[in-house]
Amino acid sequence: MAINYVYQCALPPEITLGHYILHRLRQLGIHTIFGLPGEFNMPLLDKIYTIPQMVWAGNTNELNAAYAADGYSRIKRLGCLVTTFGVGELSAINGVAGSFAEHVGLIHIVGMPPISAQVRQLLLHHTLGNGDFKVFYRLASDVAAYTSILNDMETLASEVDKCLTIAFTKQRPVYLGIPVNMVDVILSSSLLNFPLNLDIQNRNVEVEEEFVAAVLSAMYKSQNPAIIVDACVTRHGLIEETKQLVERTPFPVFCTPMGKGALDEQHPHFGGTFVGSMSSPQVREVVDFSDFILVVGALLSDFNTSSFHFAYRAKNTVLLFSNHAKLKNAVYPDLELKVALNLILARLDSSKIRYRPQKISDVIKPKLRLMNNVPLRQEWVWSQITNWFRAGDIVITETGTSAFGINQSKFPSRTRCISQALWGSVGYSVGACLGASFAAREEGSDPRVILFVGDGALQLTVQEVSTMIRWGLKPIIFLMNNNGYTIDRLLHKKSNAGYHDIQSWDNLRILPTFGASHYDARKVKTVGDFLALIEDPKFAINDKIKMVEVLLPPMDAPPALMEKWLLTDKADSEIDGRVDDLHAEDNDAFITKRIKLNDNRRSIVDYNMSYDNMDSV
Amino acid sequence: MAINYVYQCALPPEITLGHYILHRLRQLGIHTIFGLPGEFNMPLLDKIYTIPQMVWAGNTNELNAAYAADGYSRIKRLGCLVTTFGVGELSAINGVAGSFAEHVGLIHIVGMPPISAQVRQLLLHHTLGNGDFKVFYRLASDVAAYTSILNDMETLASEVDKCLTIAFTKQRPVYLGIPVNMVDVILSSSLLNFPLNLDIQNRNVEVEEEFVAAVLSAMYKSQNPAIIVDACVTRHGLIEETKQLVERTPFPVFCTPMGKGALDEQHPHFGGTFVGSMSSPQVREVVDFSDFILVVGALLSDFNTSSFHFAYRAKNTVLLFSNHAKLKNAVYPDLELKVALNLILARLDSSKIRYRPQKISDVIKPKLRLMNNVPLRQEWVWSQITNWFRAGDIVITETGTSAFGINQSKFPSRTRCISQALWGSVGYSVGACLGASFAAREEGSDPRVILFVGDGALQLTVQEVSTMIRWGLKPIIFLMNNNGYTIDRLLHKKSNAGYHDIQSWDNLRILPTFGASHYDARKVKTVGDFLALIEDPKFAINDKIKMVEVLLPPMDAPPALMEKWLLTDKADSEIDGRVDDLHAEDNDAFITKRIKLNDNRRSIVDYNMSYDNMDSV
Repeated sequence: MAINYVYQCALPPEITLGHYILHRLRQLGIHTIFGLPGEFNMPLLDKIYTIPQMVWAGNTNELNAAYAADGYSRIKRLGCLVTTFGVGELSAINGVAGSFAEHVGLIHIVGMPPISAQVRQLLLHHTLGNGDFKVFYRLASDVAAYTSILNDMETLASEVDKCLTIAFTKQRPVYLGIPVNMVDVILSSSLLNFPLNLDIQNRNVEVEEEFVAAVLSAMYKSQNPAIIVDACVTRHGLIEETKQLVERTPFPVFCTPMGKGALDEQHPHFGGTFVGSMSSPQVREVVDFSDFILVVGALLSDFNTSSFHFAYRAKNTVLLFSNHAKLKNAVYPDLELKVALNLILARLDSSKIRYRPQKISDVIKPKLRLMNNVPLRQEWVWSQITNWFRAGDIVITETGTSAFGINQSKFPSRTRCISQALWGSVGYSVGACLGASFAAREEGSDPRVILFVGDGALQLTVQEVSTMIRWGLKPIIFLMNNNGYTIDRLLHKKSNAGYHDIQSWDNLRILPTFGASHYDARKVKTVGDFLALIEDPKFAINDKIKMVEVLLPPMDAPPALMEKWLLTDKADSEIDGRVDDLHAEDNDAFITKRIKLNDNRRSIVDYNMSYDNMDSV
Repeated sequence: MAINYVYQCALPPEITLGHYILHRLRQLGIHTIFGLPGEFNMPLLDKIYTIPQMVWAGNTNELNAAYAADGYSRIKRLGCLVTTFGVGELSAINGVAGSFAEHVGLIHIVGMPPISAQVRQLLLHHTLGNGDFKVFYRLASDVAAYTSILNDMETLASEVDKCLTIAFTKQRPVYLGIPVNMVDVILSSSLLNFPLNLDIQNRNVEVEEEFVAAVLSAMYKSQNPAIIVDACVTRHGLIEETKQLVERTPFPVFCTPMGKGALDEQHPHFGGTFVGSMSSPQVREVVDFSDFILVVGALLSDFNTSSFHFAYRAKNTVLLFSNHAKLKNAVYPDLELKVALNLILARLDSSKIRYRPQKISDVIKPKLRLMNNVPLRQEWVWSQITNWFRAGDIVITETGTSAFGINQSKFPSRTRCISQALWGSVGYSVGACLGASFAAREEGSDPRVILFVGDGALQLTVQEVSTMIRWGLKPIIFLMNNNGYTIDRLLHKKSNAGYHDIQSWDNLRILPTFGASHYDARKVKTVGDFLALIEDPKFAINDKIKMVEVLLPPMDAPPALMEKWLLTDKADSEIDGRVDDLHAEDNDAFITKRIKLNDNRRSIVDYNMSYDNMDSV
């Protein structure tokens, strides 16, 4: 891409720092920039309009913008967020923290006051009034892989390159502060002819070979193996390599909720979604009794001590994290996912595998057709919607009941999925839907973007729907209206508490209120309504923005949630009794056992209901 | 209030920690708690419903909730915000930072995971996935006067008391983390019979007397004195004392924009709003030539070096900050505003004052009546609205053109004013309006709450209007629709840049979309429309929520802004020339002179347009 970049873009020999940054983003395939204007970033924003095919999205607030940049990144592998000093960056920080927690590549550019004002500690607005200009930068460093402020004239270009490289290769947020007076500093455009070096650095071949040999040795011997695919496969662009692994081994393969979309769920080896103790019986049957588990693209740093109880049973667990790996209890630092996976593929000799494939039960059970006038319930809705998905779809689910419901579905090939299961910031999905919609439009094939969001969650970030309308984006929004925060009702077992309630909105008016003229808004209440909707081929086309309000009972949830939480009161009290018995035991054994017990009532995202029974230690 | 508190409330001898906190808040007059539910705070929220006259507001998102708690505090002197660990608290942090910057008393209660989970570093959702449970607490400490996590069984009650005392007396945010397993720890309710000690500690009478003697000596001699009233007067509840000072001296008195509402603007000594170089000529005439200026309740820590150029001319400037004082260049640490002001009143001998009052020009000039079909412009609207305000009103303005427009008005007595001039977070006013509306309703006299918000700013926080509807609150909302971010258009002098534009909403549908059934929504375009509105006695009554969309030209602004920014291009280039000349001079003199020059084009909130001409130092 790069050697003739200056020529291809007909750039002058000298460009500003602002232009340099934007061209670097463009080289990485970034065509949409998210954020809000502010006096300290406007000189940078002016330059966006001069870059071919680049768009300033102009979000409605900074948190939504951060969610949008995150959603965009989950499709494009990098997102760019621009905010202004103080108020802007702090409003976004929760969204950036989500990108950090969930390993999403993000470059957060913050327009800062001029260096002269900072040195003199002038009182500017958007400061805390104490002359401390570094405070926001300090705050950012806890949720960034790297932070930088461009104030050294000698290293401007190399520092920009470093920031972008880290954000892209580590798949984490990077904070890049630009004092407003630096934006127009002149650089040589020929620097753009040298592509960013995105290769993995500091490799150690000996370590890699030792690790892979050990992994393969365990894999060959295994009688009951399983592969579990997690989020970092998508983040690091390793869907193709993972597919090869699945093709070249006869093992049953599962995805985690955060790994959904990383795997072809139509593949004959696909066994379903692994959700720890909330998995379906067919999934647990395989995973719980595995003697070898290979987790590809593991996201969670304590994957094997918290939510995923398979670690207690599997003899051999291999975890390929984004930048390190674990085999049983041995840690291999600095072993990158991409390297490990490719070397496994290179060294894999399928003929040595002892395991002989067993039949995998089908994930989705056919459901009886209900009478048309039956009111909708979550279990049925999620069982039906799975048939409506199409290859290429981008499916986004909100933290809440939707995140559980989606695990019931078996995706067509090449379906992408976005959810924020670990960080779990309510309202995230609406911003992410905007970002994913921009990314989808850039793809040319214009895939459908389908959002499932609860009525409670929608209220946190609703105004971002307006940005979708502004840009003529065409997501299909399923508004799962169950009258408040149903997930919390279930979590806290206090379904009638006032704080679970929300103001009732006239949701079908949202699109026209935000200025939509070409749209589809409708409400479905019954089985008949819903079937008519998903059987209508016109509805399935993403030719305009659509919102379907799905009316659901307040105390209803997907079966995984219902079964675990509402029907286990008896089991819970039994477990509590056993926890009490454990108090007499020695501390280590106690903790280990209690974790095991608690796993029985903990979901993948560790909706920990057991704190009532935990005392301070 | 307190000695029989347990008896009065018929409390049992033992109560939970959660109840203890809420009763302490109630003792401080706090009856509304803002925030969102989350699993780690729900056990605390349950208890709100058991406290007499206490309400859980249930906001639509955490940033809005922080703004609301801030707005409530500006009326009640303390606000309470409850969020959940990680996602909740980080979403709120920009609002909390605003309270910190602007000296607003706030207690931010964060529901945290159980201590046992933290010690074991379990992976919980809403963590960064790295087992670091302290990260959010660390982040909070930069924008809090004090931070605490309740994990010591021995000091629970005293720590709660300490947090509340600091938040109330320092008028700053305090962060109070409560591990969810601590909420039900039992305390003796009799502790509530001992009132919080809100008295000022560590006084030094010698310092106080020395300072006040020096102040009075300068005051007595002054030929051209002035009093300027700033924000901390309201924050620290010193409106009555300030009134006495104004009564007992013949000096002309002014307020800053952030001090508006701290002073009776109908008083014959009132000279107008002091906005630095953007003040009206009548104000500058007095302040610029003063030989003694007493600033009561000064908020800005570098008040005299940045925006307020009077410091360069006045021989004697006295600044009474919230917790220290300055006389010329002498700093008196730990001298609290309340102490200093009361001692000045105690020692003041009015007969020694040399100054003889001069006539003060009237602030508001009568305007000609325009033809009814003339389209509205900001200058005219602000000149008219001033006559529509009433004693007791709470007037809230957004950062943007409204914050400038309001300075044109002369308030009736006892008008309160809320704006966020220093921190300047766009969208703040909508959340603040919710908080102020709750506070107003608690007052019994049910004063009007009047919000001025731009169409751009409204989009950031619009969903909080739904919370107003939910609770039957009745603010009167003037939606100043000038088609985008007008203040930014003016700031950046790039009026046609795309990033100033916003999606056009059908604003009159907002109230019904959010579920309002009893409301008034209308649009005004012309002088005739607007006069009919403000002359209609029915419209003036706050009997339901009202939204008036005021259509204004995109490039229009209140005169102070227009004159300074649009009409001073010539002056700007002259100043730039002089700045360039200064480069040759020595550094200190250069900086001093440049600050002076820059003051000519800087508003009170330091909308610093001069960074184009500043290079790095």
